[in-house]
Amino acid sequence: MVFKIGVVGCGTVGRGLVSLLGDKRGYLKEKYGFSFKLSFVSDFIKGTVAGDDLDPFDVIKSLEKGDLTSLPGATKEMRPLQELLSSTPVDIVCDATPTNYETGEPGMSILKSALKSGTNAITSSKGGVGLDLAGLKKLASDNGVALRYESSVLSGTPLINLVRGPLAGCEVLKVEGIVNGTTNYILTMMDSGAGYADALKEAQRLGYAEADPTGDVEGFDAAVKVCIMAQEFFGHHLRVSDVDRTGITGITLSDIASARDGGKRLKLIAGVDKSGGGVRGFVKPCAVDLAHPLASIMGATNAVCVSTDNLGDITIVGPGAGARETAQGLLSDMLDIASASK
Amino acid sequence: MVFKIGVVGCGTVGRGLVSLLGDKRGYLKEKYGFSFKLSFVSDFIKGTVAGDDLDPFDVIKSLEKGDLTSLPGATKEMRPLQELLSSTPVDIVCDATPTNYETGEPGMSILKSALKSGTNAITSSKGGVGLDLAGLKKLASDNGVALRYESSVLSGTPLINLVRGPLAGCEVLKVEGIVNGTTNYILTMMDSGAGYADALKEAQRLGYAEADPTGDVEGFDAAVKVCIMAQEFFGHHLRVSDVDRTGITGITLSDIASARDGGKRLKLIAGVDKSGGGVRGFVKPCAVDLAHPLASIMGATNAVCVSTDNLGDITIVGPGAGARETAQGLLSDMLDIASASK
Repeated sequence: MVFKIGVVGCGTVGRGLVSLLGDKRGYLKEKYGFSFKLSFVSDFIKGTVAGDDLDPFDVIKSLEKGDLTSLPGATKEMRPLQELLSSTPVDIVCDATPTNYETGEPGMSILKSALKSGTNAITSSKGGVGLDLAGLKKLASDNGVALRYESSVLSGTPLINLVRGPLAGCEVLKVEGIVNGTTNYILTMMDSGAGYADALKEAQRLGYAEADPTGDVEGFDAAVKVCIMAQEFFGHHLRVSDVDRTGITGITLSDIASARDGGKRLKLIAGVDKSGGGVRGFVKPCAVDLAHPLASIMGATNAVCVSTDNLGDITIVGPGAGARETAQGLLSDMLDIASASK
Repeated sequence: MVFKIGVVGCGTVGRGLVSLLGDKRGYLKEKYGFSFKLSFVSDFIKGTVAGDDLDPFDVIKSLEKGDLTSLPGATKEMRPLQELLSSTPVDIVCDATPTNYETGEPGMSILKSALKSGTNAITSSKGGVGLDLAGLKKLASDNGVALRYESSVLSGTPLINLVRGPLAGCEVLKVEGIVNGTTNYILTMMDSGAGYADALKEAQRLGYAEADPTGDVEGFDAAVKVCIMAQEFFGHHLRVSDVDRTGITGITLSDIASARDGGKRLKLIAGVDKSGGGVRGFVKPCAVDLAHPLASIMGATNAVCVSTDNLGDITIVGPGAGARETAQGLLSDMLDIASASK
């Protein structure tokens, strides 16, 4: 079977995915028996192009010129997904749009449109799945299609699919980790002696932090990921406002030093825990013992420790951001959907 | 579908698997739709019992009395697998026998018998798969069945299935890690000031090291795992004698101290690398930078860092031994085979 792919969102991640698909076409066919046709690419700013079999390299070339309009038949407008799907049906819609934490848009509408039309959907955006993963899962199941969202949590570092597949048989008791690279980068710089303001400025200069860094430094980004984990691992719905959340803006160099004096290191830990009755989600700076695997996670790297009944603690460490890394998360979801359809 | 299971080997791991299957019957059915019947259990010393639907708890109770003979119809002898399979066919044979590195037996013969008879096989023994994974894979493919061996490398900590599933789409460039808990335990004790002989004695007292510790401390156990990784990740056949192998018997407290003075920690690193042309397997003590995820792995824990094209380094950390842990590796393979058969 040849899988028809539609990509929505042409920012860093969407472009990363198109580029990865182009680069890896031969490898994917040989190693996984996965063949695809790129059927459409659509973006709020860059326009829309649809066709029987778009060349990923042509799409990238056009985007490098500014938008999609140098491709034959392209329009300057974003076309509504439902309309696109009715004229150009695909097997998998890839949502690579940016996230609005409060509304879950545009991801929420994209996922709903895709699933309702009976199309498999994968997303790298934590907006929709962070707000109502249970509702979206039900929509997928009602329509007999798959919804996958690996890269919404740790970009390409597998957590969702790790627990789903290789850890099958284990019951998850607790999950905690470093799920926001920006704050971990800032804390790493502070650990080397930089003040908070300087560390933030450097993170902004490197593109890790946005001009308004609130989403990261106040722990909102991590809290949305906690909501996804609560639903995924415990089937429990948490809203961001349910998460016990403290960011890193109050941390001083003296806090860092006193942690170090106690053989510990300050980390912004996000987690979800069902020990002790209910399901509790949290994001807070914690002094982590230096012997703990999370203590040695430096820079923009992410790491999550999954506590299970059969294996005790399993920790996965890897990148938490990046175009190709996040695209890889989408690709692994795509390959999984394809392998289940065989 | 109800999967019929046959277990060969009733040592710590086999018993752990039977016990896990008994404990988790309800959970496995509810969460994964996996139903099973335990059809036979067979062991060189404990005897053999076969039936339509053995109760795992009865099997464990009988084993606690010394062997399987308190179960109805049990024999004191190990019955040849081929004979067992012809009278009591199963869907999955679980090989949980101990490993002979040189001959690969008894695992090799068990896996061959199962696969030749058209039965899926899973193993926790590194004997057969370490010696000829390619041959066994071919046998499985020729007979249209599956061969799985997650727990042969890191017991229940997923590495094989991590790369196969959640990391699908990535090309593996290098794999290296701490794959032997015994030597890591000894090095951890030496890091705290114990001499090699004392550390070894303590590891033996705790059951981490055997009376003859050669297999672990000279790096043979790790080298067999390197052979499995070479075939699994690079499709390249290595023999144990091809692996550039140095154990930990020559390490002194002064080596440990001078590593520490350089901001590093001595670890026995096993790996396989295809950068620079051919495929190179190695097991050797390395001074690992303290900032590297492998440096903080202490005690009997295992950790492997997989270098990939799309994600850079992904590290997985978890237990490398234990009855329930290794049984979990077998269980995850079983669930994967079951999910592919749906």
